[in-house]
Amino acid sequence: MKKEHSAIEALDIKRPTLLIDEQKVRRNIEKMKRKADFSQVLFRPHFKTHQSAEIGSWFKEQGIDTITVSSLDMANYFADNGFTDITVAIPCNLLEIEKINTLAKKITLGIVVDSLAVVTKLDAMVKAPLNIWIKVDVGYGRAGIAWNQEDEIVKCALAISKSSQMKCVGLLTHSGHSYKAKSRETIEVIYDETIDRLHRVKKACAHAGSNSLLLSLGDTPCCSIVDTFEEVDEIRPGNFVFYDLTQWQLGSCNIEDIAVTVACPIISKSRDRKQIVLYGGAVHLSKDSLTTKDGDTVYGYCAQWGQNTWEGIESNAPLISLSQEHGVVQVHDDTLFNSMNVGDTVIVYPIHSCLAVDLYSEYVSIDNRKITKGQSNAYC
Amino acid sequence: MKKEHSAIEALDIKRPTLLIDEQKVRRNIEKMKRKADFSQVLFRPHFKTHQSAEIGSWFKEQGIDTITVSSLDMANYFADNGFTDITVAIPCNLLEIEKINTLAKKITLGIVVDSLAVVTKLDAMVKAPLNIWIKVDVGYGRAGIAWNQEDEIVKCALAISKSSQMKCVGLLTHSGHSYKAKSRETIEVIYDETIDRLHRVKKACAHAGSNSLLLSLGDTPCCSIVDTFEEVDEIRPGNFVFYDLTQWQLGSCNIEDIAVTVACPIISKSRDRKQIVLYGGAVHLSKDSLTTKDGDTVYGYCAQWGQNTWEGIESNAPLISLSQEHGVVQVHDDTLFNSMNVGDTVIVYPIHSCLAVDLYSEYVSIDNRKITKGQSNAYC
Repeated sequence: MKKEHSAIEALDIKRPTLLIDEQKVRRNIEKMKRKADFSQVLFRPHFKTHQSAEIGSWFKEQGIDTITVSSLDMANYFADNGFTDITVAIPCNLLEIEKINTLAKKITLGIVVDSLAVVTKLDAMVKAPLNIWIKVDVGYGRAGIAWNQEDEIVKCALAISKSSQMKCVGLLTHSGHSYKAKSRETIEVIYDETIDRLHRVKKACAHAGSNSLLLSLGDTPCCSIVDTFEEVDEIRPGNFVFYDLTQWQLGSCNIEDIAVTVACPIISKSRDRKQIVLYGGAVHLSKDSLTTKDGDTVYGYCAQWGQNTWEGIESNAPLISLSQEHGVVQVHDDTLFNSMNVGDTVIVYPIHSCLAVDLYSEYVSIDNRKITKGQSNAYC
Repeated sequence: MKKEHSAIEALDIKRPTLLIDEQKVRRNIEKMKRKADFSQVLFRPHFKTHQSAEIGSWFKEQGIDTITVSSLDMANYFADNGFTDITVAIPCNLLEIEKINTLAKKITLGIVVDSLAVVTKLDAMVKAPLNIWIKVDVGYGRAGIAWNQEDEIVKCALAISKSSQMKCVGLLTHSGHSYKAKSRETIEVIYDETIDRLHRVKKACAHAGSNSLLLSLGDTPCCSIVDTFEEVDEIRPGNFVFYDLTQWQLGSCNIEDIAVTVACPIISKSRDRKQIVLYGGAVHLSKDSLTTKDGDTVYGYCAQWGQNTWEGIESNAPLISLSQEHGVVQVHDDTLFNSMNVGDTVIVYPIHSCLAVDLYSEYVSIDNRKITKGQSNAYC
């Protein structure tokens, strides 16, 4: 595992630990900011991936203070930490109207709607200025009004424009079907189709009298692979801040861009099966998986450790199963297998960094500093 | 969803919420305790499923105070809450020797080993009396010394018996392959095979001079389906306290035994696709799934709501996809679909209660009381 005489010993890892490489994070932020600036679009990164006020401050240092989150509790957390322009990019949860009203009095709050029924209900309940984004489904098929149901979208836009508190600021989409793409080319096609569909809807709204709608999109595959975004007004990627094996497999990032890993002690070793067992399971990595070209299900890969951080991937050491606290690594290389022993620590790249990070209350940086974060089910 | 005029309104649910039915929990505990008592075996339930001191007290009220956990941090949490006889049923993590030594001075601590190398290292580091269980792999193939490598197991037993601090108390196994069984009969076969293999190993150890070893097993499918356990000395099931859809599919429980659910607000509805979108995703339910008889992947099923609790299953309303905060329910029944609207709350049975529960810092009981719990990645 090439970890002798390296910084890993200084971390004094004793149990599954979420590691972060600040330099990689800052580089990922800088790269995406540069792309947004080049296209002169607003960068409104999704903070659901890192959920940390301190990491939020790294964005602020690069001049980024407009953000996206996925819950009102997360919005409250970041508002408490100095962010004053936040979009909650999930269809409006009417049950949380009190949180919406309280927060909308304090900050510039953006809310997402995807039906006229919700617009009507929201209008009757809202007590402070609210920016409304109409969610458009451009092909993902999860939430949003379908792009070809222009009449429905226009009705929403017009209804919002009649409200005293609500302002219809634009059309928002998430091309989540990019995650199912098998190539960079397919992702580019999805992006072009997204742009085309958003512009059709925008035109229909303008034709009906709802002018100047902004266009907002945000999925890490498209935002990473496409070079320029002149056709929209803002981008909202989130996962890019850390990336992970899913993005690496999609071609959104290089392996050296992955900025979080999970360090796991080895607790068992089977010479017969050429397997090692990690103290590191579904409660440390999440149960998300990827399918390899050979059709195998994999829950993570071991990383190599360089002088000061992880470097490269042990493609001969996939995690092939996860239970609550155990992870099983199948080692296909004898030298590597012999170098892995009970009492050692293994570094694991996560399949889906958003879900892995969500499981922890803090990060440990590779220079051994603790970085706190909120926890999605503990905000309320 | 049959929820008018029922107790669910009183819960005032506004966001994804982990619900617990105390009566069902107490009934599950009582049933397993009765089985253990009938067979005159020690009941040492695994507390990794609930991770709550208050729920632990419900066990104590039924006279159960010997427990199992899956991490030293969890052992510390329950030791701080009055439990004095705890087995940590995961292969010994040598990196946490300080925690082992501190805890072993305070309580009766059981530790699991599965190699002579670990026994030797542990012996050199341990500073307080420690009960040692040798983990035997009876066919699951995750951790443990294989049952047919009797020589290795005997060597461990003899090495432990020479230690001044360590006491070899017995052979411990987890027949996790019962989770892959397709029928109750297969689970019974796995149980019988487990017993046979444990007894062979015990005999070999006795022959070599290591007498009076106890036998401990513990997986919820076997412990739920098999009637009597005379052939072993203790049982350690965990999931039975709540059960879930995985256990229900295996035949370990009835649907009315499932004692935890997740309440999720509806935030979007698509008439075209006959889908509703829940505010409730992988960070609220975990990404664990089951495969139906038709080969479909399902992340949960909606429950019906009776007068005071959930009752029955909406088999026409499976969760077919989960992202970080969204869950998509495919509704195959028109009447049901028409009854589900944005702003309503849906009750979801989890696929794997251990993983879903791990995501929360508290339960809400159906009589609207908060029940706190530890959190696995926040103990340290």
